Amino acid sequence: MQLKTTSHLAEDRYFDPDPGQKKVALELYRSIATLPLVCPHGHVDPRLFAEDDFRFENPAALLIIPDHYIYRMLYSQGISLEDLGIPRQDGGEVESDPRRIWQMFAEHFNLFRGTPTGMWLADEMFGVLGVIEKLTGESAQAVYDQIEAKLQEPQFNPRRLYEQFNIEVLCTTDAATDTLEYHQAIRDSGWQGRILPTFRPDAVVNIDMLSWRQHIDALSDVSGITVRDYATFIQALESRRAFFKEMGATATDHAALSPYTAVLSSPEAEAILQRAFKGDATAQDAMRFTGHMLIEMARMSVEDGLVMQLHPGSYRNHNRVVFERFGLDKGADIPLPTEYTRNLQPLLARFGSEKRFDLILFTLDETTYGRELAPLAGHYPAVKLGPPWWFYDSLEGMRRYFDQVMETAGIYNTAGFNDDTRAFPSIPARHDLWRRAATNWLAGLVVRSIVDMDDALDMAHDLAYGLAKRAYHLD
Amino acid sequence: MQLKTTSHLAEDRYFDPDPGQKKVALELYRSIATLPLVCPHGHVDPRLFAEDDFRFENPAALLIIPDHYIYRMLYSQGISLEDLGIPRQDGGEVESDPRRIWQMFAEHFNLFRGTPTGMWLADEMFGVLGVIEKLTGESAQAVYDQIEAKLQEPQFNPRRLYEQFNIEVLCTTDAATDTLEYHQAIRDSGWQGRILPTFRPDAVVNIDMLSWRQHIDALSDVSGITVRDYATFIQALESRRAFFKEMGATATDHAALSPYTAVLSSPEAEAILQRAFKGDATAQDAMRFTGHMLIEMARMSVEDGLVMQLHPGSYRNHNRVVFERFGLDKGADIPLPTEYTRNLQPLLARFGSEKRFDLILFTLDETTYGRELAPLAGHYPAVKLGPPWWFYDSLEGMRRYFDQVMETAGIYNTAGFNDDTRAFPSIPARHDLWRRAATNWLAGLVVRSIVDMDDALDMAHDLAYGLAKRAYHLD
Amino acid sequence: MQLKTTSHLAEDRYFDPDPGQKKVALELYRSIATLPLVCPHGHVDPRLFAEDDFRFENPAALLIIPDHYIYRMLYSQGISLEDLGIPRQDGGEVESDPRRIWQMFAEHFNLFRGTPTGMWLADEMFGVLGVIEKLTGESAQAVYDQIEAKLQEPQFNPRRLYEQFNIEVLCTTDAATDTLEYHQAIRDSGWQGRILPTFRPDAVVNIDMLSWRQHIDALSDVSGITVRDYATFIQALESRRAFFKEMGATATDHAALSPYTAVLSSPEAEAILQRAFKGDATAQDAMRFTGHMLIEMARMSVEDGLVMQLHPGSYRNHNRVVFERFGLDKGADIPLPTEYTRNLQPLLARFGSEKRFDLILFTLDETTYGRELAPLAGHYPAVKLGPPWWFYDSLEGMRRYFDQVMETAGIYNTAGFNDDTRAFPSIPARHDLWRRAATNWLAGLVVRSIVDMDDALDMAHDLAYGLAKRAYHLD
Repeated sequence: MQLKTTSHLAEDRYFDPDPGQKKVALELYRSIATLPLVCPHGHVDPRLFAEDDFRFENPAALLIIPDHYIYRMLYSQGISLEDLGIPRQDGGEVESDPRRIWQMFAEHFNLFRGTPTGMWLADEMFGVLGVIEKLTGESAQAVYDQIEAKLQEPQFNPRRLYEQFNIEVLCTTDAATDTLEYHQAIRDSGWQGRILPTFRPDAVVNIDMLSWRQHIDALSDVSGITVRDYATFIQALESRRAFFKEMGATATDHAALSPYTAVLSSPEAEAILQRAFKGDATAQDAMRFTGHMLIEMARMSVEDGLVMQLHPGSYRNHNRVVFERFGLDKGADIPLPTEYTRNLQPLLARFGSEKRFDLILFTLDETTYGRELAPLAGHYPAVKLGPPWWFYDSLEGMRRYFDQVMETAGIYNTAGFNDDTRAFPSIPARHDLWRRAATNWLAGLVVRSIVDMDDALDMAHDLAYGLAKRAYHLD
Repeated sequence: MQLKTTSHLAEDRYFDPDPGQKKVALELYRSIATLPLVCPHGHVDPRLFAEDDFRFENPAALLIIPDHYIYRMLYSQGISLEDLGIPRQDGGEVESDPRRIWQMFAEHFNLFRGTPTGMWLADEMFGVLGVIEKLTGESAQAVYDQIEAKLQEPQFNPRRLYEQFNIEVLCTTDAATDTLEYHQAIRDSGWQGRILPTFRPDAVVNIDMLSWRQHIDALSDVSGITVRDYATFIQALESRRAFFKEMGATATDHAALSPYTAVLSSPEAEAILQRAFKGDATAQDAMRFTGHMLIEMARMSVEDGLVMQLHPGSYRNHNRVVFERFGLDKGADIPLPTEYTRNLQPLLARFGSEKRFDLILFTLDETTYGRELAPLAGHYPAVKLGPPWWFYDSLEGMRRYFDQVMETAGIYNTAGFNDDTRAFPSIPARHDLWRRAATNWLAGLVVRSIVDMDDALDMAHDLAYGLAKRAYHLD
Repeated sequence: MQLKTTSHLAEDRYFDPDPGQKKVALELYRSIATLPLVCPHGHVDPRLFAEDDFRFENPAALLIIPDHYIYRMLYSQGISLEDLGIPRQDGGEVESDPRRIWQMFAEHFNLFRGTPTGMWLADEMFGVLGVIEKLTGESAQAVYDQIEAKLQEPQFNPRRLYEQFNIEVLCTTDAATDTLEYHQAIRDSGWQGRILPTFRPDAVVNIDMLSWRQHIDALSDVSGITVRDYATFIQALESRRAFFKEMGATATDHAALSPYTAVLSSPEAEAILQRAFKGDATAQDAMRFTGHMLIEMARMSVEDGLVMQLHPGSYRNHNRVVFERFGLDKGADIPLPTEYTRNLQPLLARFGSEKRFDLILFTLDETTYGRELAPLAGHYPAVKLGPPWWFYDSLEGMRRYFDQVMETAGIYNTAGFNDDTRAFPSIPARHDLWRRAATNWLAGLVVRSIVDMDDALDMAHDLAYGLAKRAYHLD
């Protein structure tokens, strides 16, 4: 077999080809390439850091089985999730040999050509795993061997990688009912890594979510406040926020089908909650209750200083077949058109001008960048715009973000970068892609004489590091 | 008169100007420039090929009168459709001298500067018709003479052009009630060109269409099944699909105001159909019936293997004045905002995970590329994304398509190119534009080190040829 | 203090970096750079020109206090509007020292990096005010001194600037009830500058506007027609249009929450108007009445030949806190998703094919450029598309406009440029940005062999000058 090496890792990768612009981009990039990584929002499991000797199992368990970005693409081309080792809800048989899963993945690696997953993997395979061959059906097992060997190396564990990646802080995302035991274990261990929780109350706030009732029971248990009405519900939430804050949290996170907000009267809120307790709440109830609770959460943020993140607009579990067989979060969430101007007005009328309030908005509807989000962020003191999310966390997605957001909002009403990943070893690749996209954009401003080099250097530092740190109160 | 020659036909036309990218683009383009043309969706009249000696009448009849892309632009600048020889519904007088129509067109040819119509015409005039002067009011009659002479040449007839264009297969679009007599004549003639029908049942499915009742009568006649209720309606459609398939069809095509889908109970479907027979169906009935029939058509596709195409989102005949005077399809169809995530969920919940089902989606709402269509195509095994349609079948339209679709869907969940034209001699120009746009996009990936040259060559071949062939089962 | 000079004013600023494209762009730009400025739509106060010796007060009063583009950005970063000298509704105290306001602005000038405001200011400061230092907290007072000195120079008054800027015509925007006394004074003065009014009846047409009743009373007064029912309302409006036309107006302008149009029967229109007189009109009434009046205004335009402009889609005064304390137009207007295809159909069915009618459409929803507006403009004789508006009047906004509009509409269905500004001294900077963006776009067509240089030169002239003049009947 002729060894095919990857060409993905040229120093000037991802930059526009014009030599003048590329020279400036490289200069800007070099000025910020080695800054520490600030990771204010993501889904890495804190358990990875709870003990010093955590090991990753095998290449498939590291890279494929937990990553719905990868297996949704393979599924789209007719490969069954069973063949990729994704566990079935009914305990039915699925592929258990990681080498066969890896082979299947490698044989279809061409599907990721030109995709951000392909770019992250290329970077991660070379930069983190030391693989130089191009992944194909032919090279699959040899590459597997190399990665497997790498996983055995003493320094290849999460804490050592955290240090090697030069991460300054890593925020996880945790249910309101989470005991944060792994965060506590990290603290107790004396290890210096900064792993902070984020308060995400969706499962107890969105009354139409699966198992809402069980989550409420868990909330009662963990808070010690029996949730039986609206008043105790609010008390329990406030108590959990206080606990999260004590454990180092600086932010909360909220998902919703839409960013609809409207205040309910106390009797209305109570009535809806009681219907939910009885299992009688309607879809309309759920929307109104979530819309009310977003305003309540904003009120709590004004009081306790936790930064509020809002991630609306995903139609979860769109594929009923996959949902019934494999459950939640299997790469079958599809974006919806999303409206912010009218929907957020009630919340912003109350708290948008509060200097003690920080609301970071995300979107899966890029049409709102220039039309709604940049104008809102460019006016309201409380509003900042989060980085491109999910499908748009890509080279072209970032280009569109810079082009459509920055002229109206300016960079200082944005919140820098989130890697937003479950895949811990992909973190450096994701930040590097952002840093390259940002400096490439800035180089475009410099060569067109829109900003000078001094300003661009300063902006590059903020985009790569300072904005995220300040927006999430991590300084 | 000083002869002005067109400069539109540089070998490196349409490529980005950076010399590094252009060099790569040219290499990629040359590797696929002469591949056969696969034409899986379009509106060429099969009559052109039914006899060996079909002749085009004159330059105006060839290029202007049948092409609403051209006369809608002239109309927008105050030129009456009568002056362009477009037949009136009432038989009222219109311009009948093709030289005067041509003169009018030539005097306003500046309107097409920077438009895809301008680019196709430049290419077609030079490459197919051998005209080297720039078309202006001054050169109009001389150009007319040249084209008229060309039309007399023995090799200038549809069958010879089909061969000369290196077309591998050309699919037409045909009403469910069509007898396919021209397709039969082509078969009977022994000519080797592959002209295949496509089953388009809109006129019998969309109960709010003009003359629906007459189309139903025609359906009864042609199928030999008297359509009097829902059961016979379905039988007649199934019988027609079987006939189309026998005649070589590999696909169906469906237009709808929106991609709304939802299953009706049998009594509901029956009740709506009976109201339609009585002329009592409402707009709501029409929407629900079409939404139900789309799911039925998907069910039939699962059974008979015909690829299903969906073209939603056009507000037909928007200009009442033009519609009343000139009828359908006169360049007055205007796109609507279109929602796919919620609308298609019922259909996809049933058939989206079927490996035997292929659904090719099109859009006139580019905001859905990244937000809805690429995520759907990048998840569901059945879904593929068609190429940029209608107004977006242009250099910038293709650029937006590549930029907004490919990172999420990957190229293998797309269906290659359709020329989608009534204008047979423009086919090579349209494919060439796509091939240039595709290789220019790929060159951008190569020079930014996102894919290597081996991958890019492979992708170029698929985008130009392989994807369309496989998506439409033409291999 | 080390003097830092601005690099913003390179001759090739704002052009794409590819040397081949830049060379062509410069050639095109030079061919049109000194053409007179046609300003068919804007908000400059006619009072500036009413007397020969009008003086601007001080740098803050010139550049900051009247410009909500500037102070909304400062407000978004936590600076109070009081500190910027914005007058409160309640007469409460605000900063009155222009030097302190200027200092605050200068210290936060980095907020405008990469924004159109930053680009206009750089150009205006250098080109109009002769400032070469970069504005920072340190240089603030020195720059203030320079500008203050400039304001004292005899030639620094509006009439001399008008001449120096090479303005050919400047249209203001004036309430239907305006007496046009300043326009009359300009006429009477014998000064040759062409300052024309534009008829904007929103305050009397949109029955849900604040103080609608007072505006109706003013309409009665100024027209001499007592508005007591629908017939007198229409008469009064027609009378005012006639007066505006006599005073040189060539156009009207209409704002609306949405471009909804539908004809009301006379009794319905009467009933809604009577409810409005009683203060009983609903939001639904307001929408229907505005939708009806847009069609009425189109009818009047067909009769009197005034060009009709429509600016829909802004959610005015979104921030209740700012609105209550500071009133209207304080940088808190946020765009809404906007639909044109269905909404405008009733109006266009009546008047869209009228050759004597000109309707110029604007949008704050860029998704409508390619989907709805370009197809409408590319079909209806009456429809033209206005330039990028408000948040999109920027380098990237213009790029998106050219890329998304021109392939479908062609340039001849567009209306050239509007500066749309209150800030008179920023006019040359705004036109220059447009001219650079336009020639850069054209250069991209030339280097890709889409148009030849002859065509591009002609198109550049039209985009910079001819289109606006013709679209607004200013020739």
